[in-house]
Amino acid sequence: MNEKGTVTRTPDILPEPTLRRLPWYLAYLSTLRHADVVTISTTRIAEALDVDPSQIAKDLSFLGIRGKTRIGYNVDDLERALRDYLGFDRSHNAVMMGAGSLGAALIADSGLHRYGLNIVAGVDIDPAVVGSEISGVKIFHRDRTAELIKELGIKIGIIAVPVEAAQEAADDLAAAGVRAIWNFTPSRIRVPEGVVISNTSIYSHLAVMYNRLSLIEQAGAK
Amino acid sequence: MNEKGTVTRTPDILPEPTLRRLPWYLAYLSTLRHADVVTISTTRIAEALDVDPSQIAKDLSFLGIRGKTRIGYNVDDLERALRDYLGFDRSHNAVMMGAGSLGAALIADSGLHRYGLNIVAGVDIDPAVVGSEISGVKIFHRDRTAELIKELGIKIGIIAVPVEAAQEAADDLAAAGVRAIWNFTPSRIRVPEGVVISNTSIYSHLAVMYNRLSLIEQAGAK
Repeated sequence: MNEKGTVTRTPDILPEPTLRRLPWYLAYLSTLRHADVVTISTTRIAEALDVDPSQIAKDLSFLGIRGKTRIGYNVDDLERALRDYLGFDRSHNAVMMGAGSLGAALIADSGLHRYGLNIVAGVDIDPAVVGSEISGVKIFHRDRTAELIKELGIKIGIIAVPVEAAQEAADDLAAAGVRAIWNFTPSRIRVPEGVVISNTSIYSHLAVMYNRLSLIEQAGAK
Repeated sequence: MNEKGTVTRTPDILPEPTLRRLPWYLAYLSTLRHADVVTISTTRIAEALDVDPSQIAKDLSFLGIRGKTRIGYNVDDLERALRDYLGFDRSHNAVMMGAGSLGAALIADSGLHRYGLNIVAGVDIDPAVVGSEISGVKIFHRDRTAELIKELGIKIGIIAVPVEAAQEAADDLAAAGVRAIWNFTPSRIRVPEGVVISNTSIYSHLAVMYNRLSLIEQAGAK
């Protein structure tokens, strides 16, 4: 609220459901661009993604984007605006905590780089890994975490250590001043207030999938 | 419902929130086992994970597990029961659609194998990749997808192709008879009824994290 007590619209405070839909639109626009489609209507997007057309118009209006009557949106322009808004075109320096199987895999994934995540260093305790390079990213000993974060201007820490070491890794990151932690372990880690936490537990998704799969198989066996 | 019209409790139909919490418990138990803790109370689990104690007791009762008064749960037993229930101890054959950066990374991640996912083959269209091996997993041409699924008893298809090819990959998988699809693209894919779909869009999670991060930075700059 401003001094007069009226609510000022802050375009950056997006509801999380909107924020989760924007990458769907972006993915769909990429498909359209590959198919040489020039303009697209809200109705068409709505059909393709099974989202209400008015919801799409609302989501895009958060970005200050409005379609033209009868024409819709220009595919290239909308894709560029979405990438820019989502921060995929800016570079965000990150450190990978844990250069084991998953950590190494994430370092090697050039997709993350295309979405603006710039992993500038890895950290591990395994002597077999410390000192090595993965896809051009150097792996340092854990003792040097704080130093790396300061020297390389790292704002994001990614956690891909074994579950039992996850909280400790988060503590190290927060103490060294990172502003966001991306946790790939199924561990429920705690962070100080003011630090963004994002959880991507791919193994938890596996559990849900196995369960649904066994239900289908049971139903099929009846 | 059975013939008498009464509801039979089917322990396998779990609410998704419960199913998502079970891996948290499992991760915490693994931490306890590493610290040589033998028994654990619901109260302690609740404190560590910031989940209501009665919720934990309810979640575990779905698995038919009850703690002992004043003692709680045996850590090893509970860990084993959870792993078994979640299907992590059974082997599930899967095919990786797309052996590019992310696909190759997932194939190389031994963590998935530890959670029961057995990637037995990869599929791609890039001549530079077809015929190669990644961590012992052979990559075949896309044309052979249906044949592989049948011959290798594959129930799960994982999609890590470029977004614009995601729906096509899903169609190939469903036509060849897979029962579950794990989609790693931000694309909203459609599957026939009876096929389980699980979405893990790590790039969408990045978008949410960037947005929260920029809010914190704006607040800090004021």
